[in-house]
Amino acid sequence: MWQVNRLTQILNITYPIIQAPMVGCTTPKLVAEVSNAGGLGSLGAALLSPIQIREAIAEIKKLTPKPFSVNLFAPGKPSHYSREDIEKVNVILNRYRHELNIPEIMSTHFSTQDFHEQLAVILEEKVSCFSFTFGILAADIVKKIKAEGIYVAGTATTVHEAKLLEYNGVDMIIAQGYEAGGHRGTAANTPIEDALTGTIALVPQVVDHVKVPVIASGGIMDERGIVAALALGASGVQMGTAFLTCPEAHVHPMHREALLNSTDESTRLTRTFTGKYARSIKNRFLLEMEPFQDLFPQFPLQSALTQDIRKASAEQNNPDFVSMWAGQASSLCKLKNAKELIFDWTLKVKNLIKAMV
Amino acid sequence: MWQVNRLTQILNITYPIIQAPMVGCTTPKLVAEVSNAGGLGSLGAALLSPIQIREAIAEIKKLTPKPFSVNLFAPGKPSHYSREDIEKVNVILNRYRHELNIPEIMSTHFSTQDFHEQLAVILEEKVSCFSFTFGILAADIVKKIKAEGIYVAGTATTVHEAKLLEYNGVDMIIAQGYEAGGHRGTAANTPIEDALTGTIALVPQVVDHVKVPVIASGGIMDERGIVAALALGASGVQMGTAFLTCPEAHVHPMHREALLNSTDESTRLTRTFTGKYARSIKNRFLLEMEPFQDLFPQFPLQSALTQDIRKASAEQNNPDFVSMWAGQASSLCKLKNAKELIFDWTLKVKNLIKAMV
Repeated sequence: MWQVNRLTQILNITYPIIQAPMVGCTTPKLVAEVSNAGGLGSLGAALLSPIQIREAIAEIKKLTPKPFSVNLFAPGKPSHYSREDIEKVNVILNRYRHELNIPEIMSTHFSTQDFHEQLAVILEEKVSCFSFTFGILAADIVKKIKAEGIYVAGTATTVHEAKLLEYNGVDMIIAQGYEAGGHRGTAANTPIEDALTGTIALVPQVVDHVKVPVIASGGIMDERGIVAALALGASGVQMGTAFLTCPEAHVHPMHREALLNSTDESTRLTRTFTGKYARSIKNRFLLEMEPFQDLFPQFPLQSALTQDIRKASAEQNNPDFVSMWAGQASSLCKLKNAKELIFDWTLKVKNLIKAMV
Repeated sequence: MWQVNRLTQILNITYPIIQAPMVGCTTPKLVAEVSNAGGLGSLGAALLSPIQIREAIAEIKKLTPKPFSVNLFAPGKPSHYSREDIEKVNVILNRYRHELNIPEIMSTHFSTQDFHEQLAVILEEKVSCFSFTFGILAADIVKKIKAEGIYVAGTATTVHEAKLLEYNGVDMIIAQGYEAGGHRGTAANTPIEDALTGTIALVPQVVDHVKVPVIASGGIMDERGIVAALALGASGVQMGTAFLTCPEAHVHPMHREALLNSTDESTRLTRTFTGKYARSIKNRFLLEMEPFQDLFPQFPLQSALTQDIRKASAEQNNPDFVSMWAGQASSLCKLKNAKELIFDWTLKVKNLIKAMV
């Protein structure tokens, strides 16, 4: 009934704990520390150029001999907007540019990298595990990655997505519950309203419909969540927010502060920042822009439109206009390094399980 | 670390499993069967008159010598609407009356009972446990109930609500996660957007902030959810949807059918049916009325306005316009009676825990 050995054996790791590939936050140091502590570190490489990916992987390999994972966004179809539509959004956003004293610009350029060029580096570097999110990667690509001896993990937010991922050949499935911080991994053609199932409800339903190991994510912050996930039938957990307050993570001090001061009422799902639904701590931008969400273009265009505002807000140490990704249990964040966290959790997991009998 | 003995000892029950007080569905037979099987049955008495409550309690007592619970809605402040506002809603609803061939009426009468008269019966009957939802019962009322030797359980959907409930003297707190079927137990002055935390995230946060036992609810459907909830620090679970497909439950056959055919994508939170957010299986009424939600009055007035439509839809075996409450894991529903379910779960819980070591 307990599936925990499946994942640790496949991935050759000590504990079934994957550190989530949080784009922008996952330094080579964080990834390596998690792997050194017996978990699986993950590099969120989606916004890195092929050269940057190669450098980061080299850096991680210098810091750990252990397995680790690299994550990309599954390539999506570009959406088209008229210059007029975009100008409307820009007019709404200009109020914040005035407030932050930055010029009125309309940047529609967002540095999305070519997925296949990124993937080529990952294949050459023969990392242990490749994970992806935002969609269902084609079967031939999954096959190509597996042919290099790399394990492939896909992200599902519904049972249907999980079935498609298994059909396309992935080795394991990350079931991302509604509680998760940051972006929903939902595929472009799944209506978001149908992809908001909480972890405790999603995991057993996914487990019942696929044969590959399932990794639970969303709202898991400590030994309690880890044991809960395993009881639900998961073979392991993916934890993101729990690692955001580690000194090894690349997180703005005011984001870290917001996490440590958060409560269960602090976060919202929003597409105001990037055009794709993501869970962030509430702030002025999120709340004030919510009524305009329907006007905003899809990811990554909305990301491009808001990036100067988010950057200026961060540089000015102003938490009002910057995204601060966080899961629904961010109040359980601890100011410890990754090694200490994993040591604490795994020790307490053993105690919890002992106390069960 | 494991809190399970706290609840079973306080309530004098064998298993820490509470059957949720689902209004309209909890027959005396269901309540008694759950208690006879070692759990705690609950009568959803909120819409029953004092006389009906007395009759139902008498019936339950005939069927079981074991402890059971009775549940009411915490009294709320009435909201006021102009006849004009209500007429606008009625015009929107009339299309369904035409489709169902029922007269255009405007009923603003919903049979809400007087809380204090209902409570008086419960006090006289000295049931084992009284639970409430939809708000924070005043400390003097909690005290009065406890003075009769009745345990009091309040429902919280946020940590803040849990703290207020504990402050007002409740013996235990039901932490209701976002996944739960039926109505959110959220208090009137908690913004609903802040009260949508998933069970896996809500329970440990509540547990860390109160001293009284916490009962997890929302998305728990079988032994996996039960062990998960206990691992999160809960002292027990409250399960609703899992009991809806029992023959003992009073559930329309088409509702039961919808539960058995549901998937993880089937439900939505909606206030279209009653004016208060509740999770139901998607149907035409829910989806078509969603854009008008902001126009609809608060509970219980919206319930009054839609009741003839829901009633006619049920009578005509038409699933399009009737509320079909369900949690996010309703696809795990089984066609078994309550005794069999509890037997299966508790046996498997033991196996799950044994397999842990």
